[in-house]
Amino acid sequence: MKRSWIVGLITLFLVLAFPVSAFAANEVTTPVLQVGLNTLFVFLAALLVFFMQAGFALLEAGSVRMKNAGHVAGKTVLTLGISVIAFWAAGFALGFGNGNSFWGTTGFLFSGDDAAASFRSLAFSDVSLNVKFLFQLSFAAVSLAIACGGMAERAKLSVYIIFGTIFIVFIYPIVAHWVWGGGWLGSLGMQDYAGSTVVHLTGATAALAATILLRPRLGKYNKEGKPNVISGHNQVLTVLGVIIIWIGWFGFNPGSALTPLGNGFFGYVALTTNIAAAAGALAALFISWAVAGKSDIQSMLNGVLAAFVAITGSCAFVTPWAAVIIGAVAGIIAFFTGKWLERAGIDDPISAFSVHGLAGVWGALSTGLFATPELVATTGVGKAGLFYGGGLGQLGIQAIGVLGTFAFVFVVSFLVIGAMKYIIGIRVTEEEEMMGLDISEHGTYGYPEQMSLIQHQASKSTQRM
Amino acid sequence: MKRSWIVGLITLFLVLAFPVSAFAANEVTTPVLQVGLNTLFVFLAALLVFFMQAGFALLEAGSVRMKNAGHVAGKTVLTLGISVIAFWAAGFALGFGNGNSFWGTTGFLFSGDDAAASFRSLAFSDVSLNVKFLFQLSFAAVSLAIACGGMAERAKLSVYIIFGTIFIVFIYPIVAHWVWGGGWLGSLGMQDYAGSTVVHLTGATAALAATILLRPRLGKYNKEGKPNVISGHNQVLTVLGVIIIWIGWFGFNPGSALTPLGNGFFGYVALTTNIAAAAGALAALFISWAVAGKSDIQSMLNGVLAAFVAITGSCAFVTPWAAVIIGAVAGIIAFFTGKWLERAGIDDPISAFSVHGLAGVWGALSTGLFATPELVATTGVGKAGLFYGGGLGQLGIQAIGVLGTFAFVFVVSFLVIGAMKYIIGIRVTEEEEMMGLDISEHGTYGYPEQMSLIQHQASKSTQRM
Amino acid sequence: MKRSWIVGLITLFLVLAFPVSAFAANEVTTPVLQVGLNTLFVFLAALLVFFMQAGFALLEAGSVRMKNAGHVAGKTVLTLGISVIAFWAAGFALGFGNGNSFWGTTGFLFSGDDAAASFRSLAFSDVSLNVKFLFQLSFAAVSLAIACGGMAERAKLSVYIIFGTIFIVFIYPIVAHWVWGGGWLGSLGMQDYAGSTVVHLTGATAALAATILLRPRLGKYNKEGKPNVISGHNQVLTVLGVIIIWIGWFGFNPGSALTPLGNGFFGYVALTTNIAAAAGALAALFISWAVAGKSDIQSMLNGVLAAFVAITGSCAFVTPWAAVIIGAVAGIIAFFTGKWLERAGIDDPISAFSVHGLAGVWGALSTGLFATPELVATTGVGKAGLFYGGGLGQLGIQAIGVLGTFAFVFVVSFLVIGAMKYIIGIRVTEEEEMMGLDISEHGTYGYPEQMSLIQHQASKSTQRM
Repeated sequence: MKRSWIVGLITLFLVLAFPVSAFAANEVTTPVLQVGLNTLFVFLAALLVFFMQAGFALLEAGSVRMKNAGHVAGKTVLTLGISVIAFWAAGFALGFGNGNSFWGTTGFLFSGDDAAASFRSLAFSDVSLNVKFLFQLSFAAVSLAIACGGMAERAKLSVYIIFGTIFIVFIYPIVAHWVWGGGWLGSLGMQDYAGSTVVHLTGATAALAATILLRPRLGKYNKEGKPNVISGHNQVLTVLGVIIIWIGWFGFNPGSALTPLGNGFFGYVALTTNIAAAAGALAALFISWAVAGKSDIQSMLNGVLAAFVAITGSCAFVTPWAAVIIGAVAGIIAFFTGKWLERAGIDDPISAFSVHGLAGVWGALSTGLFATPELVATTGVGKAGLFYGGGLGQLGIQAIGVLGTFAFVFVVSFLVIGAMKYIIGIRVTEEEEMMGLDISEHGTYGYPEQMSLIQHQASKSTQRM
Repeated sequence: MKRSWIVGLITLFLVLAFPVSAFAANEVTTPVLQVGLNTLFVFLAALLVFFMQAGFALLEAGSVRMKNAGHVAGKTVLTLGISVIAFWAAGFALGFGNGNSFWGTTGFLFSGDDAAASFRSLAFSDVSLNVKFLFQLSFAAVSLAIACGGMAERAKLSVYIIFGTIFIVFIYPIVAHWVWGGGWLGSLGMQDYAGSTVVHLTGATAALAATILLRPRLGKYNKEGKPNVISGHNQVLTVLGVIIIWIGWFGFNPGSALTPLGNGFFGYVALTTNIAAAAGALAALFISWAVAGKSDIQSMLNGVLAAFVAITGSCAFVTPWAAVIIGAVAGIIAFFTGKWLERAGIDDPISAFSVHGLAGVWGALSTGLFATPELVATTGVGKAGLFYGGGLGQLGIQAIGVLGTFAFVFVVSFLVIGAMKYIIGIRVTEEEEMMGLDISEHGTYGYPEQMSLIQHQASKSTQRM
Repeated sequence: MKRSWIVGLITLFLVLAFPVSAFAANEVTTPVLQVGLNTLFVFLAALLVFFMQAGFALLEAGSVRMKNAGHVAGKTVLTLGISVIAFWAAGFALGFGNGNSFWGTTGFLFSGDDAAASFRSLAFSDVSLNVKFLFQLSFAAVSLAIACGGMAERAKLSVYIIFGTIFIVFIYPIVAHWVWGGGWLGSLGMQDYAGSTVVHLTGATAALAATILLRPRLGKYNKEGKPNVISGHNQVLTVLGVIIIWIGWFGFNPGSALTPLGNGFFGYVALTTNIAAAAGALAALFISWAVAGKSDIQSMLNGVLAAFVAITGSCAFVTPWAAVIIGAVAGIIAFFTGKWLERAGIDDPISAFSVHGLAGVWGALSTGLFATPELVATTGVGKAGLFYGGGLGQLGIQAIGVLGTFAFVFVVSFLVIGAMKYIIGIRVTEEEEMMGLDISEHGTYGYPEQMSLIQHQASKSTQRM
């Protein structure tokens, strides 16, 4: 009897001891590995989204004239610098800190993982808070890059500095808080997987306010008010910019899964995202071919971007087939609305409002149409869409989100930039605009040798007259 | 007696119960983490290969004249769009779906991980099928980018659209199926780790067929049939393209390990790949210096690419020393065959057939020479090469693979493009070619301001005459 | 009795058997996953640092004149090729092989993970040695890119080849060994987390020696010895280069944690690194605005780089607030020292010595000022800094490291380049420099069409005179 007890106890000891020693030998436990893996995933995603800054710099610089190209490229680094400091100091706290339904109030001057208690809205994921900060920062910086796109070729450098700071400290974080930070739109069940509304519509609405207040570039409209084409100077750079943005979007949307686990769900998001972009490229190319008689590269590039913007909100909620439709429709929307806005007197040099704004609205609404019950169950956000038996409920919530975001961002941006217009002025002088912002804002051309050729030719043409 | 049974049963219960509770506490099990880790690895690799599209866009656009640069860059986005849609709809199914030794027949309109039963040839890896799709898609798109390279500066945009679709739906997937999808070349034991043959020789052979049918660019040959140099317009962009492709190849080859586990074997693949590329750069630079008296940057860049192409098939089977030899020989092959093909009347603007085709052949054969028994055992594909006691067997299989691929791709491409030539025409008019494809195909220059300078000077030169 | 023994033995058998079967079912153990995860992390970091080569190619090419741009871009691929071969053959062994306090003596012709016994200094991390090699190689290549920056627009191609080889085989590895390979500076407790001193000061000091020996470019100084501005030809490319380098630095510094585990410590390093860069951008922009009356983009870009260089050494040891200060001070240092060196007759076309050298010195010293006791405990290197109660000890060690590195690298570089100057000559002829190194070193322009316009205009201007 005694011996059997001894045997049993030894065995029991071994049973209990073994896993401990096993884990000691294994050095790390699976939860630690899981955190590390998820953190690495989000880090990669954040870098991809950061890389989109290079894409926007190229897209914007390639879309303007040579005399403004150095300025436009350079201000991207400036606004990136502003984004980092402003989001660290205050934007992250207002957007994701603990607070009320409208803004966060904790976590200013973000100090790292030890500030976790100040960011309960992000606690659902086990990723290191340092890397969550980086990820959210990269989104905010994209939104600002979009906002700045509408200002190109005429806004003073100071506008980028002052408005950029206000945008990152206040405007973007408020919207982010509403949807992702524990605010009222998130509570309503709004579906915005990676930011059709939060990132793109917000940036584009600010761009719209800016472009209205700045008024069109010199020479954009003739005396009858008909728009002239002001071609960008370098389509190779705009193409490169769009391919980089394409790569970056694999961080934007799949990265928003915040984990590579979960049966490869992030890969599904990559699938719908990628298909939509391709459909947008082809739809925009063919529509421009059909309407204008020539396949227009700029239209195709805008189609890619518009499709990405649209699928950004719905990528986790829809089937591949729906992604094709969402992307193609977005490409067509961007094409036509771009023309209409131009004719209506809105001079938006990179079509920020049609590509990121109106395609963003379509993206926000599309999930109210195409969200499937299965994918809604997987993500746990909102309800199925109209075409999948969900009725009009989700579509209504999406519309509320879009209207609320547009109204807030437009009013605040208009007031801020309007105030700047009356106090310090937001536009360079006519003379400065003629000579280019490279000279007026920075004192040197971005392309000194090529500009010297252009000026030489221009001066000879003048002499002859 | 009874008590000892009780003790034993309790112990048994604890033994069986403990791991369950341990894993419950750990949240995820190691197999789940393994899948996540492998999936993240292949996702990263797929993005790196996708990024090569930016590299090819720059390489090709930089290698043509300014009047065609917007067109050449822009069509990269177009062919990427086509690749995504066509591979999703059909190419993935034909390439990797279940089927016979020649093509797959299941998995059209890829719907995500739930289509796993349709892709048994990919079941050996635990990576999410969504991400495997992305990885295979990125390879197909590279193959098409190579194919399109030979068409530059004279093919109509419609050729890229129609042939691109056929290439991604049919030509590339068939070859991929033969080697990697459960087809006859894979069954023979052909070694093609990441696609010297499948990706590069396939794309380059299509480029050869296209360039033969398109005939040389205007002005490429003088009246005696001697080739003129048509310099690319921007070597900074071609260099940037090659560095991006260099980075991308770290996804191409190491990524083909499909896992970061296995004692860092993917890191070994990165080692041989990287060394070969460097050897190719130096060999091509020095051979151009020796032969032409000047170190030619374009030759060096082609040497890098040729070396990458060659090591792509053999990277997992050879020693670092063999990698140096394979890379250096590839750089030299590309240099001389590029000159020979040019003299033979093949006008291949980016040397696609010498760099991706003939270096691909060398790469395919090189593993039949240099594969070591140890590395063959590790990868489990084929046999050791001639120089490592494996006899001529593997070399013969590699030769069969090369010949079969070349014959299939050349015949089909020639027939398809030939049919297009007779039905709709594949080349722009002489007048359009003179003015450039930016204008003829898209209606605007990629570099409007710079082209206006060039035209201004040209018109003045004409006036003087 | 007997039965109780049997029950106990069965149970014991099950206890011992279970984990084996459990792990068999799980396929991999946690240590294997940990190695895979860490290896993937460092692989990603290595690729990011590799990508910085694209950034340096653009930064340097954009900062020179059109006639030299193809050459400057192309030599980046050349020096990358040299770096790979030379570091594989010898540099890795001298830097990280087992040896004495000054250099390593084992591990030449690196053969892969089986060479682990030759690299005991790297054994503290479980990452695959193949990938550690790639990571260290990418650092060495950055250091060489910096060194070459000072030589732009006048050095013969052969200088890059010969000095580049010596730099990667000998100069860089010696310094790396001193600090990271088990050498005397590491033993002293020098803090250099990712290489302010090892990578940046080393490269910049070689650049200083080269620029002194090469003497200024033609036309850089007027007859009174006052510096003229020689503008780079393409600011869009320099901006793109800096954004790419920004992305790459997320591999440089956070990657040096060598693991994504450890409670996201690498994310903390990313936080301080990113904040410092942004502070450097803003500080440099505003100081240039204040001093020169115009916000200068080139100064801002140099401010970004200088801040990165400075925080590279201290990123793991300091608070976010200190990062702001370190970055801002670095941006200001680069601005003023750049001007001073230029006035002192040092013609350093990309400001390599002020941006990478003097900011590197500031970075090395900054950790002796700002290192906190907590972070020093986390990293386990050195002591707290002066402002955090650590006294002058760490600051003294940092100063020794800086002085030792500068003295060694400057003397050896000066002797090597000086010897080359007397034996083979290091500078192209005056005529070659006038026509540009694209022609003199490679026989073709990097921008043939644009250079033809420039020459056309220049010839007409001459005719008129």
